[in-house]
Amino acid sequence: MAVGPSTFPADMPEISGLQIGVAEAGIKKPGRRDLVIMALDAGSRLAGTFTRNAFCAAPVHVARRHLKAEIDGPRYLVINTGNANAGTGEQGMTDALATCEFLADVAGCDAQAVLPFSTGVIGEPLPMDRLTGALPTAFAALGKGNWSDAAHGIMTTDTRPKGSWRSVTLANGECVTIAGVSKGSGMICPNMATMLGFVATDADLAIDQSALDEMLRRVVVRSFNSITVDSDTSTNDACMLAVTARAARVEGEDLVAFEAALADVMLELAQAIIRDGEGATKFVTLEVEEARSVEEARAVGFTVAHSPLVKTALYASDANWGRILAAVGRAPLENLEVDGVAITLNGVSIVEQGGRAASYTEAAGSAAMAEEELVIGIRLGRGQQKARIWTSDLSHDYVSINADYRS
Amino acid sequence: MAVGPSTFPADMPEISGLQIGVAEAGIKKPGRRDLVIMALDAGSRLAGTFTRNAFCAAPVHVARRHLKAEIDGPRYLVINTGNANAGTGEQGMTDALATCEFLADVAGCDAQAVLPFSTGVIGEPLPMDRLTGALPTAFAALGKGNWSDAAHGIMTTDTRPKGSWRSVTLANGECVTIAGVSKGSGMICPNMATMLGFVATDADLAIDQSALDEMLRRVVVRSFNSITVDSDTSTNDACMLAVTARAARVEGEDLVAFEAALADVMLELAQAIIRDGEGATKFVTLEVEEARSVEEARAVGFTVAHSPLVKTALYASDANWGRILAAVGRAPLENLEVDGVAITLNGVSIVEQGGRAASYTEAAGSAAMAEEELVIGIRLGRGQQKARIWTSDLSHDYVSINADYRS
Repeated sequence: MAVGPSTFPADMPEISGLQIGVAEAGIKKPGRRDLVIMALDAGSRLAGTFTRNAFCAAPVHVARRHLKAEIDGPRYLVINTGNANAGTGEQGMTDALATCEFLADVAGCDAQAVLPFSTGVIGEPLPMDRLTGALPTAFAALGKGNWSDAAHGIMTTDTRPKGSWRSVTLANGECVTIAGVSKGSGMICPNMATMLGFVATDADLAIDQSALDEMLRRVVVRSFNSITVDSDTSTNDACMLAVTARAARVEGEDLVAFEAALADVMLELAQAIIRDGEGATKFVTLEVEEARSVEEARAVGFTVAHSPLVKTALYASDANWGRILAAVGRAPLENLEVDGVAITLNGVSIVEQGGRAASYTEAAGSAAMAEEELVIGIRLGRGQQKARIWTSDLSHDYVSINADYRS
Repeated sequence: MAVGPSTFPADMPEISGLQIGVAEAGIKKPGRRDLVIMALDAGSRLAGTFTRNAFCAAPVHVARRHLKAEIDGPRYLVINTGNANAGTGEQGMTDALATCEFLADVAGCDAQAVLPFSTGVIGEPLPMDRLTGALPTAFAALGKGNWSDAAHGIMTTDTRPKGSWRSVTLANGECVTIAGVSKGSGMICPNMATMLGFVATDADLAIDQSALDEMLRRVVVRSFNSITVDSDTSTNDACMLAVTARAARVEGEDLVAFEAALADVMLELAQAIIRDGEGATKFVTLEVEEARSVEEARAVGFTVAHSPLVKTALYASDANWGRILAAVGRAPLENLEVDGVAITLNGVSIVEQGGRAASYTEAAGSAAMAEEELVIGIRLGRGQQKARIWTSDLSHDYVSINADYRS
């Protein structure tokens, strides 16, 4: 199940300086693309954000370390699905490093030029024979414009591929392009990163590495770090931005337009994860306004988004707004004056001054709740700050997906 | 559905100085006991803890205020189910006060001697005609030993009544008794209180009101405030302790034994809520040890207990211990060293030194997970403090109960 039509663009553009190769390693089951290599030409730069889960996976440790290495030649990202290589102790680290070394041998580069990523079951050892058996095939398949292959190759419980792109026309008329893919469906409550997101641009950004890192952090907070399916932060979250610098130089005011386009791509990729959230039947935007701080607005949004009672009411299309109000009331805020709180549902006023809106009717509430795409507006009446959080509902299919088989 | 046999005692004892009366007011539907009066003889004392939800219900506001009133004569608790009188604004306050005034007229006391409690649907106005219509009937029914009626009368989505009692033999051979009932099944993550708990003792406690309040707080933290079904803190939580002082004086060392017995009663009432958690098929105890502080141990326990992925794995009896590990890893702890973490499942070692235990087998894990009663042991390896948290699983029935009809 998923909400709305697939948003994967039919016209995903090539990024000069980036090649993608995909293979079937049979890591979880045969006959499925589950191994992806992304090759970045010499001169490319990388920025990344990673999960804050203390049990972060072995590949996260290795990718974080290799990200810092000084590399002159090409760099490689290698992603396997079906196995997270998390909770795997010493053997996990050995396997993640061996993956890099194996690909480095095939590609003729240093192992530190390879960043590994894994997603799938936690706690099972990585099947190294199958993974290394398929690495040469994926390497041989490297080519331009294989975004669709990459998007399929990183899917786990995802039901559809996720991609987004933008082009930015600079002040001088030249053009640069941003494109990327993401994956994620369950165990989604990213913290400083998403499940997996890989975005590349051919722009030659006139900023240093720390400014690039900061730009990624800014756009991630408002995209991947503003979504939640089930409040469970994964052990393997990572979001990578590759800058190949093969196209025009982007500097000055153009950087603002570039960052806005990058934010759009990231947000579309993040929202695609919510649309494909495990068992999702609703795509819900929480717009929290009039908060004292952005952090406070986000805390209210996440509290409502995580509430099982709100999520089951959304699934039922039941305008049980009391559950939304109760969730707002238990958010970690100091001295919330409930008389100042107002709540709307797709524009229908349901709560005013902390109680049921005078104009509210059950018929209007039910009609609003019946929509597949919902905007829950929450005004706290105590400040000027705001935030948006995206989430899905809690359906029978969520329970089935997570209870009926091991994922 | 509920886990294990009902724990309601067949031999609930009378508490001298307490009478209970129950009626059918038809607040939600006809033919169901939904209105309870508890009458406390003159000279009784009361202590209470209430929800910290900012949207706490009108009756919570009124009960908190009336609890502080100086009352010479009898006091009354009046509890209705089927309607929470929460999110009801000014009208809600008016209705809660009118309930007190109506009962005060019938009983011939001051309205401040009446404490109102409500539980049920949020946001609907209290049907005052039905409530006041049945109050005289409930008052006329007041009698000793009606605990079973009271336990049934406060049920909402509960599938079974909940009660517990203990007697305490004092050093001088005299005996005092503690008995109580609770209700709760969904929207259970009490914070400073439970859904609804009413406990009474005939003991003549030789402590002042502030010491009595403190005693209640201490036992509530380790009982009602250590359980969670679905992380949703209700708007109406309240836990009341009535002390009628009709039996022996309890002082000195006897107070320690009394508090231990009170803690037992509170814990049994709290655990009964988990056993009857909405859709529950498992009764799960999280024993978190080797934490730096009790707060830290509780935070880890609640993070695991709230994880939808852990809860669905519990429902599936799937020994997907990676999900437990991932939840521990995202708990709000500073600098958790995962190498020090060990996890057991009903005594079976599943994680050691942050990775899969060497001795672990899928067969042993699956056998442990198949049990209806589970103890998940989590050693953090960084301190001496510990805490226990109780929870249930996330089943299809939880979704059905909360999505298929308005509750």
